[in-house]
Amino acid sequence: VKAKTQVVVVMGSRSDLPVMKEAGGTLESFGIKTDTVILSAHRTPHLLKKSIEEWESSGVDVIIAGAGGAAHLPGMLASFSVLPIIGVPIKSASLNGLDALLSIAQMPSGVPVATVAINNSKNAALLAIQILSLGDKAIEKKFRKYKEALSKKVEGDRKKLSKLGIKEFLRK
Amino acid sequence: VKAKTQVVVVMGSRSDLPVMKEAGGTLESFGIKTDTVILSAHRTPHLLKKSIEEWESSGVDVIIAGAGGAAHLPGMLASFSVLPIIGVPIKSASLNGLDALLSIAQMPSGVPVATVAINNSKNAALLAIQILSLGDKAIEKKFRKYKEALSKKVEGDRKKLSKLGIKEFLRK
Amino acid sequence: VKAKTQVVVVMGSRSDLPVMKEAGGTLESFGIKTDTVILSAHRTPHLLKKSIEEWESSGVDVIIAGAGGAAHLPGMLASFSVLPIIGVPIKSASLNGLDALLSIAQMPSGVPVATVAINNSKNAALLAIQILSLGDKAIEKKFRKYKEALSKKVEGDRKKLSKLGIKEFLRK
Amino acid sequence: VKAKTQVVVVMGSRSDLPVMKEAGGTLESFGIKTDTVILSAHRTPHLLKKSIEEWESSGVDVIIAGAGGAAHLPGMLASFSVLPIIGVPIKSASLNGLDALLSIAQMPSGVPVATVAINNSKNAALLAIQILSLGDKAIEKKFRKYKEALSKKVEGDRKKLSKLGIKEFLRK
Amino acid sequence: VKAKTQVVVVMGSRSDLPVMKEAGGTLESFGIKTDTVILSAHRTPHLLKKSIEEWESSGVDVIIAGAGGAAHLPGMLASFSVLPIIGVPIKSASLNGLDALLSIAQMPSGVPVATVAINNSKNAALLAIQILSLGDKAIEKKFRKYKEALSKKVEGDRKKLSKLGIKEFLRK
Amino acid sequence: VKAKTQVVVVMGSRSDLPVMKEAGGTLESFGIKTDTVILSAHRTPHLLKKSIEEWESSGVDVIIAGAGGAAHLPGMLASFSVLPIIGVPIKSASLNGLDALLSIAQMPSGVPVATVAINNSKNAALLAIQILSLGDKAIEKKFRKYKEALSKKVEGDRKKLSKLGIKEFLRK
Amino acid sequence: VKAKTQVVVVMGSRSDLPVMKEAGGTLESFGIKTDTVILSAHRTPHLLKKSIEEWESSGVDVIIAGAGGAAHLPGMLASFSVLPIIGVPIKSASLNGLDALLSIAQMPSGVPVATVAINNSKNAALLAIQILSLGDKAIEKKFRKYKEALSKKVEGDRKKLSKLGIKEFLRK
Amino acid sequence: VKAKTQVVVVMGSRSDLPVMKEAGGTLESFGIKTDTVILSAHRTPHLLKKSIEEWESSGVDVIIAGAGGAAHLPGMLASFSVLPIIGVPIKSASLNGLDALLSIAQMPSGVPVATVAINNSKNAALLAIQILSLGDKAIEKKFRKYKEALSKKVEGDRKKLSKLGIKEFLRK
Repeated sequence: VKAKTQVVVVMGSRSDLPVMKEAGGTLESFGIKTDTVILSAHRTPHLLKKSIEEWESSGVDVIIAGAGGAAHLPGMLASFSVLPIIGVPIKSASLNGLDALLSIAQMPSGVPVATVAINNSKNAALLAIQILSLGDKAIEKKFRKYKEALSKKVEGDRKKLSKLGIKEFLRK
Repeated sequence: VKAKTQVVVVMGSRSDLPVMKEAGGTLESFGIKTDTVILSAHRTPHLLKKSIEEWESSGVDVIIAGAGGAAHLPGMLASFSVLPIIGVPIKSASLNGLDALLSIAQMPSGVPVATVAINNSKNAALLAIQILSLGDKAIEKKFRKYKEALSKKVEGDRKKLSKLGIKEFLRK
Repeated sequence: VKAKTQVVVVMGSRSDLPVMKEAGGTLESFGIKTDTVILSAHRTPHLLKKSIEEWESSGVDVIIAGAGGAAHLPGMLASFSVLPIIGVPIKSASLNGLDALLSIAQMPSGVPVATVAINNSKNAALLAIQILSLGDKAIEKKFRKYKEALSKKVEGDRKKLSKLGIKEFLRK
Repeated sequence: VKAKTQVVVVMGSRSDLPVMKEAGGTLESFGIKTDTVILSAHRTPHLLKKSIEEWESSGVDVIIAGAGGAAHLPGMLASFSVLPIIGVPIKSASLNGLDALLSIAQMPSGVPVATVAINNSKNAALLAIQILSLGDKAIEKKFRKYKEALSKKVEGDRKKLSKLGIKEFLRK
Repeated sequence: VKAKTQVVVVMGSRSDLPVMKEAGGTLESFGIKTDTVILSAHRTPHLLKKSIEEWESSGVDVIIAGAGGAAHLPGMLASFSVLPIIGVPIKSASLNGLDALLSIAQMPSGVPVATVAINNSKNAALLAIQILSLGDKAIEKKFRKYKEALSKKVEGDRKKLSKLGIKEFLRK
Repeated sequence: VKAKTQVVVVMGSRSDLPVMKEAGGTLESFGIKTDTVILSAHRTPHLLKKSIEEWESSGVDVIIAGAGGAAHLPGMLASFSVLPIIGVPIKSASLNGLDALLSIAQMPSGVPVATVAINNSKNAALLAIQILSLGDKAIEKKFRKYKEALSKKVEGDRKKLSKLGIKEFLRK
Repeated sequence: VKAKTQVVVVMGSRSDLPVMKEAGGTLESFGIKTDTVILSAHRTPHLLKKSIEEWESSGVDVIIAGAGGAAHLPGMLASFSVLPIIGVPIKSASLNGLDALLSIAQMPSGVPVATVAINNSKNAALLAIQILSLGDKAIEKKFRKYKEALSKKVEGDRKKLSKLGIKEFLRK
Repeated sequence: VKAKTQVVVVMGSRSDLPVMKEAGGTLESFGIKTDTVILSAHRTPHLLKKSIEEWESSGVDVIIAGAGGAAHLPGMLASFSVLPIIGVPIKSASLNGLDALLSIAQMPSGVPVATVAINNSKNAALLAIQILSLGDKAIEKKFRKYKEALSKKVEGDRKKLSKLGIKEFLRK
């Protein structure tokens, strides 16, 4: 891990990177030190425990893990760690992401994974940010601004649509 | 809210209490100050914003919200708050909890809800505990012990089964 | 709201407009004053109550709301309003619209949403028209004509197919 | 039809009555003249058109139709009528109501059915009441009171739970 | 109906023709007189009964009906007729044909529809052919030949693959 | 096979008999000679071909086959036979009959199975009756009477409900 | 492991034992040395690697693993082992076993799990027996006898039903 | 069968070859004699028994069967054979492979099919390799190397990503 990493973004395969890279981007736009890592529950299972120990001892706070199909990575990280694990179900070729959603959300008592929407790694990042906010007023302040900006953007679109009408609005 | 409440457990209706009460019980067994509250997104929508403001200003850290069917409560609390919201899909009479799971997990970009397994309010509590651990070494220590105890229990069952055999084991 | 608006068509994001614009078009072809509005349950939750109050006091009769994923907008409008709310589930990238359909249809007792087919904002408009017909014979008359025209079109296709045969018919 | 019936509650079979009777009860508690009728799209198809003509000419405003399985009754009434049709998917023995929900909600362009939650005939009644409210301030007033009462009940439960605690509350 | 039509192939809309035309083609290749007709349960409901009466009195033996979404056409034809009705669920834009499959297959006791695979209008034609075979040895003979040809084709592919190997086989 | 059997009702296991026996009962009430047979695609696969040959040569007209789970029996009978095969998906312990429905309905081009609703062996029998009607006016006449009786029963319930009111009606 | 164990039957929790015990019973009836073990992917993850090493070095041939919900146990054993892993999806309270089926079957390339039907631990045992048969003619012989006995039982039921008739048969 | 074939890869139609060819490729890269064969449960049912007898008597060890829709091929091969059968559900046009998955996995007691992920014929090959490993240390050794290579590849990607950063990594 890089020094002082606060959030690790993990995925099982390079093919998950186009979905998961948005998590890193979002975290960095909040100034949060992030490490994006490839680690497979199924292909490098012997690295799970070691990675968790390394991350826990180096002070990582939250782990975000994305996986598709029989998505075991978030749940196995949760099994080995005491840190909060956020799981991102990744849509794959056959079942539209339903398999990954159930494999991540339906964890047994004792080992929760905080599941977000299919392919929504940005929301995983925001959830990590909300968690980090609890101990850092500066992040909370940024997050409040972020939510206000989201709100402003919708209100801006609302006004623009009201002014331009549907046709003109869609043209832009 | 009660003084110094750290986690609020919210549900939309008294009929959700048998599922949600385990969240409160788990949190209290970790010594975390908890308030269990009935608040409906659909029947008391005007209280959403006010409740969130009250909880945020009184220092609540995490909100756990359980809901069934078109489960809007966790998502609406997330809309109004900067705190991390943990959602518990509650199984209702018709669709086995699939409706609540999708209504809670599939939140849009910008407004995450940390979704746990259907009816698993205990896992919601444990996730809250993991989040609180980040700022409180004592809780983290308790949580490590809790995980060890889970592990020990499985190992105990493993040994007992090995010693007694299936028939004898099932009789006890 | 524009003066004398009868139906408000609401959606959470500009990305919903290509689906929802057909509602406005249909309503206007019936001469019904319509306002198409962007308002997000998740990003502008503080505007929900205010918007409803404005619409109710200015005499709006029916609200049509489209949303995808964990589609909360129709249900939250229903929570704040006494007006009939018509919900349009919007198909998004992962679950083919099933998530939005369940999030909109499975509302709890006390707070109904009139759900139509996935992506079918035209049917939402027609349902609004049927509701407005109850108090306005002119609209009812137009709607009867609309249904007759639908019927005529099918009968026209029927005759044309019978006359031309399949190959020729498909070429045109 | 009984004289001055405002809402007709239709179902395909006597076995649907235990679910559908709540619609009639709710409507009558609002003082709305209701007729509860057995009429099957599949077993008495020749009565569909005649019944609709009778209801339309006698001044009925809204039709509520409940059906299970390949639930065609609401859609066929919608095909024959210009009145707003509210459909109640009824849960049957095999697919948990999903079949009825899709058969009612997924209507084609031109012929909407206002679908409510599985088995929720009470919500169908409330939606009818909201529709009737548009032309009758007295009903709207009652409906506002109904919503306030729902709200009060939740607030009452909220207070009681806060005062009694979970165990005591559940005992009562 | 055309004179001596044995099988009528019905669909609700011209947009169903690309899927349904294969039924007509298959039937005609067996020398069976076929009429392909547009008739909508939802847009021309008043023609259902009349069409059935016309078909029954003119000696039609089997009806094939294709429909998508809340697919009511096969079931309504079954309601009005004593003839065997074969239903073809048509895949539409949102739910992959699952909605149509359930709307057609899950008919109530007393009114069966013989459901075939999603979009498989050829199989509907073959099922009609099997039914007509019962009273016509010549058709049965043709159908036996058809099945043998299917079998031969698979056996031919089997031999070719065995001889050419995978790469060469796929190139052709 | 018994002499002059017209319809064979097949199932894979004695545990299917409670569902499938209604097919035999219905057929016999129409005076159709029926043979109810246990034959498993999975446990007695070597009897499939032989049984089909026996049935075809002895003049059986229609085969009804019920199966649950990975329901192969109807499809395999269709593979070996030129007779129309009617498939009844049987609900088993885990997936509510959805597995059997898909395994029976989704047959490939060339080998149709006429699928009816989950557990609805009565509808399978009625479909067989409709098929036999094509060559036997007496059966058609009985089937018309059957449909009229269904209709009368609904109309009777309709009148009784209208006369007695809901409470009194439900008591009887 | 017990000396010379050929098949290990693993499950995550004592609550899985009523489903999984049939695997052990079936294996033992074939004279195969079996060890039934509790081992949780989520609660004792540190034992996964060690257990696999122990089993592999002591000569275990096949591992059967049962799990419910987000069923990770079979997949994680497959990740750590070169032995064939057979997975049994266990039905739990909410989603009828669909979650476990997808979590076990949808494994990524490189790490297969041989998935059997929901709750069908007997079939897992039989699959293990088929695998062991490849190197042991005596087991193959027993398995052939087992299949013949299954077949005989169906044929016996077939004859009994034919002789007794449905009513009498069901009474016994 | 070719001389000394160890694994037969079967599929029902040439259209399945693009998915199934990877099984053969994988097996051959392990030096395992493979025969890829077209054989349809539905179109060449009379060849099922004969093919199985031929394969069993010529010493084939494992059969891999791919099928889509109402996928009967794996289950029927399992019915006729004592060999382990591995089933590959193939995704077809309408239901995303869910139909094939359920048709293959949900086999009844007595006749298991080892089901792998949708379209994952490579995993079917690897499972066959694991089974063959039990009697052949050389194959086991190759399989251990294969797993190590998978692991190395992930570790290589991990290092490369760590060194290059996301943008640079994705460019390559």
